[in-house]
Amino acid sequence: MSLRLTVEDVSGVFAIVPTPATPDANDPDATDTVDVDETRRAIRALEDAGVDAVMLNGTSGEAFALTPDEWRTFTETAADAADEMHVLAGPTTLNTRTTIERAEFARDVGCSGLLLGRPMWNELSPDATVNFYEEVADAVPELGIVAYDNPGAFKRKITSWDRLAEIENFVGTKAVGLGPAYWETIRQIRAADGDMRVLQMDAYLPAARSWHSDLPLVCWSSSASCGPSPVLAMMDALEAGAYERAFDLSERMAWSFETFFPNGDMAAFGRHTPAIVKARMREAGFLDPGPVRPPNPMTPESYLDGGRESGRRWKEVVAAVEETDDAAATR
Amino acid sequence: MSLRLTVEDVSGVFAIVPTPATPDANDPDATDTVDVDETRRAIRALEDAGVDAVMLNGTSGEAFALTPDEWRTFTETAADAADEMHVLAGPTTLNTRTTIERAEFARDVGCSGLLLGRPMWNELSPDATVNFYEEVADAVPELGIVAYDNPGAFKRKITSWDRLAEIENFVGTKAVGLGPAYWETIRQIRAADGDMRVLQMDAYLPAARSWHSDLPLVCWSSSASCGPSPVLAMMDALEAGAYERAFDLSERMAWSFETFFPNGDMAAFGRHTPAIVKARMREAGFLDPGPVRPPNPMTPESYLDGGRESGRRWKEVVAAVEETDDAAATR
Amino acid sequence: MSLRLTVEDVSGVFAIVPTPATPDANDPDATDTVDVDETRRAIRALEDAGVDAVMLNGTSGEAFALTPDEWRTFTETAADAADEMHVLAGPTTLNTRTTIERAEFARDVGCSGLLLGRPMWNELSPDATVNFYEEVADAVPELGIVAYDNPGAFKRKITSWDRLAEIENFVGTKAVGLGPAYWETIRQIRAADGDMRVLQMDAYLPAARSWHSDLPLVCWSSSASCGPSPVLAMMDALEAGAYERAFDLSERMAWSFETFFPNGDMAAFGRHTPAIVKARMREAGFLDPGPVRPPNPMTPESYLDGGRESGRRWKEVVAAVEETDDAAATR
Amino acid sequence: MSLRLTVEDVSGVFAIVPTPATPDANDPDATDTVDVDETRRAIRALEDAGVDAVMLNGTSGEAFALTPDEWRTFTETAADAADEMHVLAGPTTLNTRTTIERAEFARDVGCSGLLLGRPMWNELSPDATVNFYEEVADAVPELGIVAYDNPGAFKRKITSWDRLAEIENFVGTKAVGLGPAYWETIRQIRAADGDMRVLQMDAYLPAARSWHSDLPLVCWSSSASCGPSPVLAMMDALEAGAYERAFDLSERMAWSFETFFPNGDMAAFGRHTPAIVKARMREAGFLDPGPVRPPNPMTPESYLDGGRESGRRWKEVVAAVEETDDAAATR
Repeated sequence: MSLRLTVEDVSGVFAIVPTPATPDANDPDATDTVDVDETRRAIRALEDAGVDAVMLNGTSGEAFALTPDEWRTFTETAADAADEMHVLAGPTTLNTRTTIERAEFARDVGCSGLLLGRPMWNELSPDATVNFYEEVADAVPELGIVAYDNPGAFKRKITSWDRLAEIENFVGTKAVGLGPAYWETIRQIRAADGDMRVLQMDAYLPAARSWHSDLPLVCWSSSASCGPSPVLAMMDALEAGAYERAFDLSERMAWSFETFFPNGDMAAFGRHTPAIVKARMREAGFLDPGPVRPPNPMTPESYLDGGRESGRRWKEVVAAVEETDDAAATR
Repeated sequence: MSLRLTVEDVSGVFAIVPTPATPDANDPDATDTVDVDETRRAIRALEDAGVDAVMLNGTSGEAFALTPDEWRTFTETAADAADEMHVLAGPTTLNTRTTIERAEFARDVGCSGLLLGRPMWNELSPDATVNFYEEVADAVPELGIVAYDNPGAFKRKITSWDRLAEIENFVGTKAVGLGPAYWETIRQIRAADGDMRVLQMDAYLPAARSWHSDLPLVCWSSSASCGPSPVLAMMDALEAGAYERAFDLSERMAWSFETFFPNGDMAAFGRHTPAIVKARMREAGFLDPGPVRPPNPMTPESYLDGGRESGRRWKEVVAAVEETDDAAATR
Repeated sequence: MSLRLTVEDVSGVFAIVPTPATPDANDPDATDTVDVDETRRAIRALEDAGVDAVMLNGTSGEAFALTPDEWRTFTETAADAADEMHVLAGPTTLNTRTTIERAEFARDVGCSGLLLGRPMWNELSPDATVNFYEEVADAVPELGIVAYDNPGAFKRKITSWDRLAEIENFVGTKAVGLGPAYWETIRQIRAADGDMRVLQMDAYLPAARSWHSDLPLVCWSSSASCGPSPVLAMMDALEAGAYERAFDLSERMAWSFETFFPNGDMAAFGRHTPAIVKARMREAGFLDPGPVRPPNPMTPESYLDGGRESGRRWKEVVAAVEETDDAAATR
Repeated sequence: MSLRLTVEDVSGVFAIVPTPATPDANDPDATDTVDVDETRRAIRALEDAGVDAVMLNGTSGEAFALTPDEWRTFTETAADAADEMHVLAGPTTLNTRTTIERAEFARDVGCSGLLLGRPMWNELSPDATVNFYEEVADAVPELGIVAYDNPGAFKRKITSWDRLAEIENFVGTKAVGLGPAYWETIRQIRAADGDMRVLQMDAYLPAARSWHSDLPLVCWSSSASCGPSPVLAMMDALEAGAYERAFDLSERMAWSFETFFPNGDMAAFGRHTPAIVKARMREAGFLDPGPVRPPNPMTPESYLDGGRESGRRWKEVVAAVEETDDAAATR
């Protein structure tokens, strides 16, 4: 059986996309809230712009807030809309069996891989985490699995990379943060027999290169759904070893993020991620995410303002980057 | 519309039951893992013994580990097996809409109320918690809602009791712990216009009476599924103001709990609750809980041993209580 | 060498006292802020009222906020003021050697024992905790050591009771909380060869008896410094097996505590303990604690109001108890 | 009054030094454990090598473990040994007044500034944190204050940079980490009227430049006490805009850190910081830190091994850098 998303495919820009929502989607009585047309349009636009993959239902993609039917509709729509681009479904649920059922659905509708978090009602120990990933990986050997490592959502950071890297179709992890725990991830992966890659956050990637110059260039990017050109330009610059250009783009991104995380507080951000992310995306205008689905997080207006300002700034970065590209193109 | 589970009904022993599992239920490939016959038998046995209500799918009831189909099978079976006894379904899921759909199912198959936790992928703020309970309560006004307040599972303690108590069909909360936060719950409920009751843990109830002598006598009890007679006897003693008898029973329960929580560490217990609870119940022999469902928590053998020893001790307590009762009966 | 505070001496009411402060003590320029006269008066009053021991410098006693000179002045004054009553000094500092130096001073001025917390700049592991207690215990074999187990202050709960109980002059622990971790403390102590006692909080003691009827009757009480009669009356009632009387007193205490912990939030209380405790004591009027010493915790006025209301309520409880006693005395 | 350590002085390499200890310093009976000769030698060696400042008693400098006398001896010795180099004393204690007394001593013996943490027995709220820094700053207006922001030690991250930056002699902060909270620090400082600088960790500085190209170049470095040449070379490279050289050095540093933080776990590192740091420094051989002082952290041997391996690697980096320099010098 050939792996649809191989380790080598984990390269370039992996865009985090929202699950576009119909206007009534914040109503607890609403059904069929997936905006199918906008989903198709957004996926196409990302592929046309040159991103390498989309990752569907993590926190920003409201994995938790969709009904089972909506989850299937969205996954199938996205898989269908993509042409060559890899589509990683997000089948994280409260248990192994429901997740496997969704993973099989994702496989059957043409997804290449999974962005896979963990059951989080009870915290999984390191042993239980490895066991969980093994059981899902066994069930869908055709799909490449990228761990969704989010300690805020899943109550604990993943730490057993040496054992996870040995799983045949475990091809990567969406990294969180920089510093000692991140360095340890790299260390363990290098020490292990297996093979997997670390997807760093877009604006962290130039920084991360300062410690490991030889890592494959791959990032995850929620900002790509605000317009992918700055991230794509940054990847080109890194590829070319053009550090000043990469740093310049990274600095512009950081400027956009300045108002994104409320007071720099990740716990507050964690309580309101989809609401802030959607406010940002809506303002940036690359796609229309629609409203957040219940439970209503009752997000403070100041947090939404921060998200919107972040979106305005990103839009400005996009304009500057595309102007430069145009200028370059006409030279 | 008349409320099926009223505040006044929140009285006596509310048993926490497991979801009895077929022998293969720990296999990630298993389907239809609800042991329907054992479910029916256990519910009947509890009602016959005199418990006042059963609460279905919290953590011990593996709410998170059931497939949607299994959840419905179990809820319907339990509702059907009970005669006069109240049945509170456990429709906690990752979002409001799926929870409402389950709550409506529970209502339609004859449940009286809900034991209701919160979406826990993202931590809900106090405002978001109130909003969530309001939205579910609005959807099933016929059902009495008991909050499942579990900070380990749902990432934060409920604190806005004054606002929750005002929800018409919000009739109680499964309390966690003793001390200042518990006292504050009582204070807020008393200060609020609304009306709701606090279900204390069985072995904590005599203790809790030392601070509030006038609270209605009601407890939740997972131990009831190891044999309810000690808890029922304790409630009788408290009702009669027979403190020494109540204390004696409370002390025997605490002896059983001594090996139940691994090293007294609630975080460790939280990572392995269903596995330890089921090991205990199996050993006590009142019902057969079957194996735990995936994700496999990879529970250390010493934790399971502690659960089994706790079950053996509870069985001993049951025997002593029933012997006393028999002796009393033949006098 | 004979132990001054033996395990058998750990019995009755161990009062937590403040370090009475001169009116300017909240000024960062102030020196010699111990109100020596009030210290002497308060210690005498507590002994005259019948408390069995005083414990000097924990959190309420502002161990952290005193200059080294002030600490010695206070310790010596208290030791000197007490007649038969046990005085436990509070030599907790940032390191072992400074703590030993203070412990030796306490021994030399006539203290019987120590209320001993841990260095808290870096969290001590269980092994390091045992080692620390061993080293201090070795240095002052004449003194009985009572652990000050405060996870908020010292970053981690003590868990290795089996090993601590084996230390010759380790005679007790100031307990925190009820429930599994508390039960585990009792379990470990019983299982160990050594001998030590658990000092439960005053208002928790009747509750704690519901699980362990045979434990020696001893409590710590910060409320005793608001007037010890309710606590003394409660101990008498428990001694006599008069549960209803004990419960009645416990319920009155809990009523006083209702406004003491801000919104029942122990973390908030922990940031402001001395300020709230002193506001309460000042209002109760049994002694004059004076202002809090720097660092100024910038306590919200509503927290202080809660402390004052708690003090007013305690004063009311004292009046009711003493009236009953008077009535009894004249019968 | 002129400020001894101005904002402009916060530039270059600020070395974290240990408090060199006599061979018996791990004995709870030891006194006068400061190895005065080695202190003098190490300070001189650092200044001769070209570091811009030394920071004395944070966690690695065992601020908590020194007796008051030892603290004074060490501070005076270091101030005296330095010629032009800035010396920042570490007067963090459990309260404001003792800290001010030490700050005044530091000023009187010729220190330029303070590396200042917070009282940590009770967590200080943001308001209390600002108040504390204001009170100390007021007491020693001649000294430049650098905040020691260590959430592990002081229980909470500093967040009110806008208000701290307005304190006249508050000139900088020892940063912890990268990412949103760090970005927020920069954002607040820029938005505030006042003026202060952020000292980033050595191996993080190239990374940090990827987001803020215009920040003054300054870092703190504990590794400098393992031999400062790699850090000095990195600063030169950054100054010159030689990114590849800076990245190359940063990568070598990260390789040394790979085994420094046990399993990448910062909480574990926090329980054993001085022991691991000293093991590393001893192995690197630039100075002799001596043993750790009590409390004995009972550090697992594997953690010490990681520290030693990290020291060996650093020594290798030093050799490579100095060889390059020699080669350059002879060209």
